Amino acid sequence: MTDAPPIAALELGGTKCVAMLASGPDAIHEEVRVPTTRPEETLSALEAVLDGWRGFAAIGIGSFGPVSIDRQSGDYGNITSTPKPGWADTNVARRFAARYDVPVGFHTDVVGAALGEARWGAGQGLDALAYVTVGTGIGAGMIAHGQPVDGLTHAELGHIRVPRLSGDDWTGVCPFHGACVEGLASGPAIAARTGIKGEDLDADHPAWDSVVDALAHLMATLVLTGVPRRIVLGGGVLVGNPHLLPQLRAATRLSLNGYVVRPELENMETFLVPAALGAGAGPLGAVVLGAQALAERTDRAFTRV
Amino acid sequence: MTDAPPIAALELGGTKCVAMLASGPDAIHEEVRVPTTRPEETLSALEAVLDGWRGFAAIGIGSFGPVSIDRQSGDYGNITSTPKPGWADTNVARRFAARYDVPVGFHTDVVGAALGEARWGAGQGLDALAYVTVGTGIGAGMIAHGQPVDGLTHAELGHIRVPRLSGDDWTGVCPFHGACVEGLASGPAIAARTGIKGEDLDADHPAWDSVVDALAHLMATLVLTGVPRRIVLGGGVLVGNPHLLPQLRAATRLSLNGYVVRPELENMETFLVPAALGAGAGPLGAVVLGAQALAERTDRAFTRV
Repeated sequence: MTDAPPIAALELGGTKCVAMLASGPDAIHEEVRVPTTRPEETLSALEAVLDGWRGFAAIGIGSFGPVSIDRQSGDYGNITSTPKPGWADTNVARRFAARYDVPVGFHTDVVGAALGEARWGAGQGLDALAYVTVGTGIGAGMIAHGQPVDGLTHAELGHIRVPRLSGDDWTGVCPFHGACVEGLASGPAIAARTGIKGEDLDADHPAWDSVVDALAHLMATLVLTGVPRRIVLGGGVLVGNPHLLPQLRAATRLSLNGYVVRPELENMETFLVPAALGAGAGPLGAVVLGAQALAERTDRAFTRV
Repeated sequence: MTDAPPIAALELGGTKCVAMLASGPDAIHEEVRVPTTRPEETLSALEAVLDGWRGFAAIGIGSFGPVSIDRQSGDYGNITSTPKPGWADTNVARRFAARYDVPVGFHTDVVGAALGEARWGAGQGLDALAYVTVGTGIGAGMIAHGQPVDGLTHAELGHIRVPRLSGDDWTGVCPFHGACVEGLASGPAIAARTGIKGEDLDADHPAWDSVVDALAHLMATLVLTGVPRRIVLGGGVLVGNPHLLPQLRAATRLSLNGYVVRPELENMETFLVPAALGAGAGPLGAVVLGAQALAERTDRAFTRV
């Protein structure tokens, strides 16, 4: 990929955006951070950055969501129903496509990170994986046959409802579902339940049992989609609490109880693994999104000949 | 598709197999049934049928599972860890590919039915849908961008564990998970719980509440994958009990609680719909599997030129 043309990669986050001119982790030419404020201010600042760059062949954008990735829909390329003030129904992908005459790839930040981990990180060489981030929210992105798994929209599997540990009837914090996985196991859920931030909570605090149990059912559900050859785990709650991973592996095995029989699932230590790219997964994933948009346009041009 | 070349389509079921020479529902040239007995006897009988047919351009096979659809694996094309006596580790797809010099498409019967419903049935014209069958087992297949959603293996989402209705602690019948969706809502689950077969159970029997609740969480999980523009429902339990569908729509809406906002989800009457092809979905889906294998080989040949 280092011989590949550079991509203008954008990661749009809740508090900051990263713009990166790169064709891979060994070929990062520029990297600029812009605070996420109002949409017009933020997107104009990113355009000013890109205006100063030359020679990018495509743009890739991984954005906080929800976003519309439905090319059959008039709102394609928008950030849609976000509660983030001012950002609902913000045109992102079509705006950049109109300004720069290059293909634009657009997806969620989570799917971007999944693509980045699949190309250069903990899923290197795999055509199918899941990436799960457990932090302020819980997001899951899946890649199959090298492409994002999507259709009507992107995955929101952090919001599945799961069975509860016996005797646990805490109501959870998700405003939509109460005790869905995000409502039980995200950073804000842990803080609401214990009064202590996840990164400061003792490893033997009993609240971790409920967190691990909820996350394990999410892992099992991802396995039961049939897609991932590996699940890559990131986000502050998991990165900050390395004691969770062995527990999560054991609990996932218990939830599946031997049901799916494939060699990849025999060893949970190689099936459930920590992310490798850290904060780089987002912008590097956006590089992949841009490269895929470029390849898609090239394919179409070839077919037309 | 009626101008398309005929496909030799095989649906391998637990009690019978269907062989169909067809290019679509309006172009069915032959249809033969063969009982499912021992593998060698059954597959030889199907080969004898295909030996008598001429001019098929590809073979499509939708099989009871689990099957290996992993082209990176040595067991690709096998029925794998089935409890069906004699059928574990049976080579199916490679056997037919070796005997006939045509492309062979191979997947589960459920994904086959999903493809059939997407092409000619209740999902006609949709590039993304889910098909769920509720009968002896509970199977879910998803199609995205016109292709099966898979990776390591095929979906087994009938086995997800779900929250229970308050006060319901019946243990369920799944030998792996007890009260997963299949353990709570399949035909054998209903019979075990009530002593009455699903098709004979009164519409106002209280056991239906638990069945609908479990199925609604499966529907919500499918929505949260982001894939389906519609969910198509088949199988004996749902077909035989039309009173379930309105309840299932209401319970699915309750489980999601407005979380995913897309126009397709606004009207549950057009989002959760009955299958249209009935028993034809299986063999017609196998026609699509064969046609896709043919198109894939043609693409590869074109790329090589």
